[in-house]
Parts: sequence; C-alpha cells; structure tokens
Amino acid sequence: VDVRTGLPVVGMVGGGQLARMTHQAAISLGQSLRVLAESPDDSAALVAADVRIGTHTDLSALREFAKGCEAVTFDHEHVPNEHIATLAAEGVAIYPGAAAIAFAQDKRLMRERLGAMGAPVPRWRTVSSLSDISDFGQDVGWPLVAKATRGGYDGRGVWMLSSPADAVELVESGTELIVEERVPLLRELAALVARSPFGQVAAYPVVETVQRDGICVQVLAPAPELPDALSIAAQQLAIDLANELGVVGLLAVELFETDAGIVVNELAMRPHNSGHWTIEGARTSQFEQHLRAVLDYPMGETSLTAPAVVMANVLGGQPGGISIDERLHHLFAEDPGVRVHLYGKQVRPGRKIGHVTVLGDDMTPVRARAVRAARWLQEGTP
Amino acid sequence: VDVRTGLPVVGMVGGGQLARMTHQAAISLGQSLRVLAESPDDSAALVAADVRIGTHTDLSALREFAKGCEAVTFDHEHVPNEHIATLAAEGVAIYPGAAAIAFAQDKRLMRERLGAMGAPVPRWRTVSSLSDISDFGQDVGWPLVAKATRGGYDGRGVWMLSSPADAVELVESGTELIVEERVPLLRELAALVARSPFGQVAAYPVVETVQRDGICVQVLAPAPELPDALSIAAQQLAIDLANELGVVGLLAVELFETDAGIVVNELAMRPHNSGHWTIEGARTSQFEQHLRAVLDYPMGETSLTAPAVVMANVLGGQPGGISIDERLHHLFAEDPGVRVHLYGKQVRPGRKIGHVTVLGDDMTPVRARAVRAARWLQEGTP
Repeated sequence: VDVRTGLPVVGMVGGGQLARMTHQAAISLGQSLRVLAESPDDSAALVAADVRIGTHTDLSALREFAKGCEAVTFDHEHVPNEHIATLAAEGVAIYPGAAAIAFAQDKRLMRERLGAMGAPVPRWRTVSSLSDISDFGQDVGWPLVAKATRGGYDGRGVWMLSSPADAVELVESGTELIVEERVPLLRELAALVARSPFGQVAAYPVVETVQRDGICVQVLAPAPELPDALSIAAQQLAIDLANELGVVGLLAVELFETDAGIVVNELAMRPHNSGHWTIEGARTSQFEQHLRAVLDYPMGETSLTAPAVVMANVLGGQPGGISIDERLHHLFAEDPGVRVHLYGKQVRPGRKIGHVTVLGDDMTPVRARAVRAARWLQEGTP
Repeated sequence: VDVRTGLPVVGMVGGGQLARMTHQAAISLGQSLRVLAESPDDSAALVAADVRIGTHTDLSALREFAKGCEAVTFDHEHVPNEHIATLAAEGVAIYPGAAAIAFAQDKRLMRERLGAMGAPVPRWRTVSSLSDISDFGQDVGWPLVAKATRGGYDGRGVWMLSSPADAVELVESGTELIVEERVPLLRELAALVARSPFGQVAAYPVVETVQRDGICVQVLAPAPELPDALSIAAQQLAIDLANELGVVGLLAVELFETDAGIVVNELAMRPHNSGHWTIEGARTSQFEQHLRAVLDYPMGETSLTAPAVVMANVLGGQPGGISIDERLHHLFAEDPGVRVHLYGKQVRPGRKIGHVTVLGDDMTPVRARAVRAARWLQEGTP
C-alpha cells in the first residue's frame, strides 16, 4: 500500500489513453495509478504522478515496476506471456494472468479454445501454406478474412482475401496467420464484463459497435432494438468466457450479430474502446471496474445512467485547419452537453486522439450529436 | 500551451482535494493541471504530473509558477490579494481577479458591498470594541454570530455569542471581527454559478446543504421541495453577484432560507463542497466548469443527471478500527451503486477525507444510502 494514504497501488504497463483514463478513475478511489510508459510524452505519462519509463518487453523493467504494487495490469496485450508467468511465479499479483491473456494475445489459441468450449465462432483454420487458404476458400467460399495470429489492432493485422492471389504476398511475408469465413453479419456488438479473483462477475449492457476501416468509430449503448434473448445470450457468453478462461479484470467480447445469432469475433482483456461510454453512461466506469477487479474489491453497479448513450471516437484528421483548442471552443459553444475526452496525443491521420459521449432519451438525436461533435474535433468544421 | 498537446495549461495554487478533483477534470479536456502544493504529500500532489512545491504567500514562487500558464486559479482563498493584483498587472491571466476575490477573502468587504447592492444580508456591523457588540446585541437581540473577517472556513472563525461576556476574550485577542444577527433559518441552501471573462454565466440547480458543527456534511440536489420562485431568486442572485463582482470561475453563494426568503451567508470563489455532487450528478462537473470558465471556453450544461442526488462528506473518524481500504471493501459489497471519492489525505478526526455520492429517483432512499455509505467509511461500521 501507499504509506501516505493507506490505499493500494496498482501498476499499469503501458502509457496510452487506457492508462490515462484508468488513472482518472484511480484518483476517485484514493489511489494514484503507477504507469510504465515508453516515453514521458505518452498519454498517461502526461497526467500521472507515478510514472516509470521502460519497455514492456524488458523483464527487469517489469520486475522493478511491480515492486510495491498490490496489483499489476495492462493497458495493452503486448507484454510477453512468459514475462507475465515469471512475475506471477515470483509472487506478483498480475492480472489478467498468463494463462488467460494468452487467449487475447493469440487468435489461434483463442479460436481453438472457444471452439473446444462450444462457443459460437466463425469457421476458421490455421495456415501453413498458400494451399491451406485456397482449400479453405473452396470449402467456405470467398472472400475470406486472414488475420495475423498476434499483434493486430485497430484494423491492422486483418486482410480481406477475394481469391488465393490476394494471399500470395501475405503468406510469403512469413506472418503467422489464420483464415476465417467472412460472417454475413447484421452488425457488430460488444459484451463487456469484469471478473475479480474472488470470482464475482459484473456484466454491462450489450452495446452496438460501428467500425470503419477496422477502427471502432461509434458505440451505441444499449444496442438499439436488440432482442432480450440475444442480449442475455451475449452477456451469458461473456460471463462464461471470463469464468472458463480465468480472466481477472475486464473482458470485452467483440461479437457479430447474424441471422443465426451471435458469433465471437475477438477478445480483449483490459479496458476497451467499446466501454468508453461507461465513464458517464454507466453507474461504474469500466476503468474503475477494472481497478476494482484486479484489487478484488466487490464489483460496481453496471446499469445505464440514461436511456441512450453514444460514444464517438475522435480520429486525427488531415494536418492544417484550426487548432484542437479552437475546435473545442466551437464545439462547446455549439453543444454544451457533449462530454469530451482528449488524450493529449499528437494528431496523426486516423489515430485515436479522443472521444466524445452524449447522453439522452432517444438514440437517434443522441447519435447525431455525438457524430457531429466528433467531426468538429476531427475536421474543424461541423 | 503545452507544446506536446497543443492544449492550454491551467495552474492551480493550493494542493488540496479541490485541486485533486480539478486535475481529474482537466485530464478529460486533454490538459494536465499544474499544481502549486505546500508538500509532495498534498492531496493533489499525490496524483498530478506537474507539481511545483511552494507557498501561496511567496510572490516569487507564484510568479515562477505562473510562467507558461494560460490561466492561474486557486484551490483556496488565502493567496494575498496584493500578490494576485501584482501578477495580473504583470500580465498573468489570474482568476478570480484581485477585485473580485477580495469579497470572498474579507467578510466585512463582502457585507458592505452586498448591502450596497441591495442583496439580502443579515443585519451586521463592524467591531472595534466590546461595546459595539453589546450595543448591536441590544438592537437585534441575542445570540449573535461573530465572524473573523478573514481566514475562516469549516466552522473556524465563527463564534456564537449568548451575551457580551462571551465576546470578551475574542475582542481581547485582537481578531478583526464583524457581528451578525442570528438569522432564524429554515435550512441552508447554496447557489453555484460559473462565469467566464466573456461574461457567460451558467447556473446549477439550487441545493440544500446540511451542516454539523459548521462543516457541510450533506448536500441534497436539487433542494427538496424548494418553491420555484425561491429557486429562481437564488439563481438570479448568484448570477447578479457574479456579474456585479466581476467573478471569473465558480461562485458559490451560501444562503439561509427563512420565512421571508433567502439571505446571503457566505461567498466562495472556487470549486466548492456544495458542488461536489456535480461530478456525477450534473452534466458538467463544477471542476470542469471552473476550468472552462478560467480558460474562457463556453460553459457546459448544468442540468441534473438524475432526479435526486445526494453527496455526503466523509470526515476522519477516531483512530483505530479497520483500515480505510477494508472499509471500502465492505461498503462496495453493501452498496455497489455508491460513488466514492477519497482524497488521499491522512485521517484526522473531523477532517474532510473524502465524499460519497448517490443518485436515484427518490430523495429519501438516496439520502439514506449516502449517509450510510459515509458512515461506513468514517466509522468502519454501518
């Protein structure tokens, strides 16, 4: 514990916006998040008091970082699994554990395990050669989705293949791949749960996520007109996965909604973009919930604070135009009710630099306001 | 501006819980609050990245602190007025300005000015000798309320006088005093507004404040069963005062509700305990609103996020019992919906160490939950 406060210290590996927003939540709990950042200019390092500079692949840096922490957790899933296992063996309370996070780090492992559990997944196979892809395409039909088994995010590490020819370069690059059928989806959903070491699991309302170029651009909470049965099925699936995989902390299950029900797309084991709406839109934010989970506190209430909540990501726009500060002025003048979250990140086209959240009674106008607000910050015009 | 983010830097003088919660709000706006703290263990210094150590009475420390800030503001009202004037003359955007904050620093000035404006105030007079008190008591009746003109807070600097004899020691101590009639109050209210340099003013719903031993222990938002006319009168009074006094930033007007209407008790020009409920209970928190005001951003929406919101302060209890961390576990198990804010402060009996907020549809159960939660954290028993 922090001897100055008598309250626990949580360390988060990675200094991105998830750590930044987790620090905000930690402050309410009387804590100050310890952050392992690559650079003092990282999003979380700009705002946190207890920042250590180091690399998540460096075991000795991780070991030093963990000293004095009641719990260590992650802003991303790139810490080598063997390092997580080593620290746990040395007595560090590090969550999610190596056995669990492996399923968020490696899509092949995830698909195998989910298949074995009987969870709904797309048809898929591992790839050792180009002919594996051709054969699979012949079985399930083109196009196919190829995914790097490790390291992909925000649309990176995912490729649409219309024919075997599309795969030649990819296979030659030596990237470890799986291929999946392209699921005929109605829309994408996400089910977010948190699980503590004690085994308590709390589930948030199921949301709709809207992607563009593989990047989440909007989240609608709750998912509009989602039948109760599907909503319950999605929550139950996420709860089962959290229990089966032994997740501690948050688990975000990205889902496809299809005519036949839900299918698991991806897993993430950390605060997740599909849960940013919870900061204002749920009684307990995902960031506080993650802290409560890794510290084995009882979970917080997950209910909505308004009938309709929409989060829209702010992506970096093209260079030029008015400054981000001026954009903020204009946006605040136009819509005094929008909630803004800026991450302190340098603007690069397509990079997530912030998000906005709007709450209200009806999804349609709430969504329109959120989209407009995000566009203001992104493009400097309404 | 912070060259790393392109966003403004606000400096706050004082490292207490108000600065701590303002830093939390600054993070959402892409900023990192710069804090001038007395000690690295101050509440805000524990969580903020940009902390300077120095004393608010030291002009050169203030001058150094202000360098590179787009705006400088305060966590308390103890910065010498002449230092504020000096910095402003040197080109620092320091808010509220010396002319305005004087009315929050000096109760005699405040009473004179409000009287001249025709604002409703208790009958009062300045004190140069014991006979001033006796005479005034004979005019308005005993008991009287004596107040130190400067430096009082949380019940300090306020004395109830039943007779002239009660005042002897006080007058002999040389404390500069005013005396006021004891207003026959029904309850206490507070009206919170924010004003920008541009002149925009935003008003929050009027709240009821419950005091014990001169310390605010509960805030009920909105003030239950407050007639519309009184609510509008209180808001209008606070708006008029903000405009007349040239306040920039937050202005909290503490009011007595009497049979004859409202009477001004005190003014505060900073985020205020009567506004902590706004973190979850209003669309824009008072901390964000204060930042928006001192940066001359357009003001945020002030509407309630739930029909009933109650904030209860957590005061330090007697030493002993289970740790604050264990108390938090128990509280979270008992009420997963309560919002907790701990300030990272050492526990001392009667010291404000945190607060809790509960939101809901009906004031009575919401209030009961908030009181119970605060008691858990305070006493370690339900």
